[in-house]
Amino acid sequence: MRGIVAFYLTYLPCLILGIICVALVVHWNYSYRGGFAWDGSANHFNWHPVLMVTGMVVLYGNAVIVYRIPLTWGHNKLPWKLLHAGLLLLSFILSVIGLCAVFDFHNANNIPNLYSLHSWVGICTTALFTVQWVMGFTTFLLPCTPISTRAFIKPTHVWMGGIILVLSIVSCISGINEKLFFALKGNTNGTLSYSTLPPEAITANSLGVMIIAFGLVVLKILSNQIWQRPEPGYEEGVYQPLGYDGS
Amino acid sequence: MRGIVAFYLTYLPCLILGIICVALVVHWNYSYRGGFAWDGSANHFNWHPVLMVTGMVVLYGNAVIVYRIPLTWGHNKLPWKLLHAGLLLLSFILSVIGLCAVFDFHNANNIPNLYSLHSWVGICTTALFTVQWVMGFTTFLLPCTPISTRAFIKPTHVWMGGIILVLSIVSCISGINEKLFFALKGNTNGTLSYSTLPPEAITANSLGVMIIAFGLVVLKILSNQIWQRPEPGYEEGVYQPLGYDGS
Repeated sequence: MRGIVAFYLTYLPCLILGIICVALVVHWNYSYRGGFAWDGSANHFNWHPVLMVTGMVVLYGNAVIVYRIPLTWGHNKLPWKLLHAGLLLLSFILSVIGLCAVFDFHNANNIPNLYSLHSWVGICTTALFTVQWVMGFTTFLLPCTPISTRAFIKPTHVWMGGIILVLSIVSCISGINEKLFFALKGNTNGTLSYSTLPPEAITANSLGVMIIAFGLVVLKILSNQIWQRPEPGYEEGVYQPLGYDGS
Repeated sequence: MRGIVAFYLTYLPCLILGIICVALVVHWNYSYRGGFAWDGSANHFNWHPVLMVTGMVVLYGNAVIVYRIPLTWGHNKLPWKLLHAGLLLLSFILSVIGLCAVFDFHNANNIPNLYSLHSWVGICTTALFTVQWVMGFTTFLLPCTPISTRAFIKPTHVWMGGIILVLSIVSCISGINEKLFFALKGNTNGTLSYSTLPPEAITANSLGVMIIAFGLVVLKILSNQIWQRPEPGYEEGVYQPLGYDGS
């Protein structure tokens, strides 16, 4: 019982931090960077941070801890598997649109793609996420996958889930840092320099801090063994294939 | 036995990746950034990446997995505790000198300190590392700390150890990315632009990839429960105070 109270006392900040991250990244790009468009302009680029933070961090982070919510433990696992896979698919789609935003913006303005370390880490993270989602779907949702294969893959699947979140955070922090140096050049482009910490810099730096805080809370929830869904045995729904109705 | 072979097959890449990280960061700053000095010049700054990568990533990463090496399991824990604490103290000292390098360089060139997101994350990581080392020393090495306190603190100490490595990697990747945009400006400062991926960019981007690979291997070693040092009980050296000789 104490473990459940402690869980919700950790889960609540997780939800709040997620909302703060989305609000801050939208506020930054809407209020300071000129808002949103899909026309090859700088406003086209602005979808990139919003969709990557929302998809690859906040939605992804919430999706990976679905099984840790004690409220879901008394029920058949299948609906929660579908929620887990569905949220991650949505997270993946948002991330891909977020990548399209930056590629389209670069191509429209003759800026090379994939040269910065930020972009190398980011594209590897998305590739790893793709592999993880496809492997997760074929291993844990297709009815034909043997239960022994599921049991063998599960620890790697869980570990990779945490690592992808870490890499997403690395990508976001390096990206926000890079964008602020690009955008806040001082006299060169009529802005206040990043080094004078104008309100935009405080906003986006705070976004970075909130992303890290959110990620740490998710990793804490993932790492605490007493918050793992009790798994009574394969027969009772632990590695339940898609379509198995519990009967 | 299979677990031990698997450990060394993971530990060997960890050692190799650590050496590659140190070699690459020295090579980058020596061959492309002009080498090293302690005179307020750009070469003064070059100590910063070298000491942070060597101290906060490579030495730190090797220090946190000392107890996982099966070779150490048959012995009294105390010498390995001292090695763990000693390596981390050396890692801390290198990091502090690395921070002095960047503060001195900034102050000598009238560049403000601690404005970028990279610097915010980096300084918080070092602060957390300081707290962790002091807490670790007082909890696990001072003979006066009760065994019950050690048992209570240990899971947090282990978890924080992993998190500090993650934050160090976030700091390094954002810092390398930032430095390359500063250094490789194309026509503006007579270099090839970062976006054309000159040899320096490939070198430093590869350093970033190697740092991430090293970090992932360390996190994998930390997370694998079968590689944890067998702990027979408090009486047999698990939470052994400094000075306790095992008798």
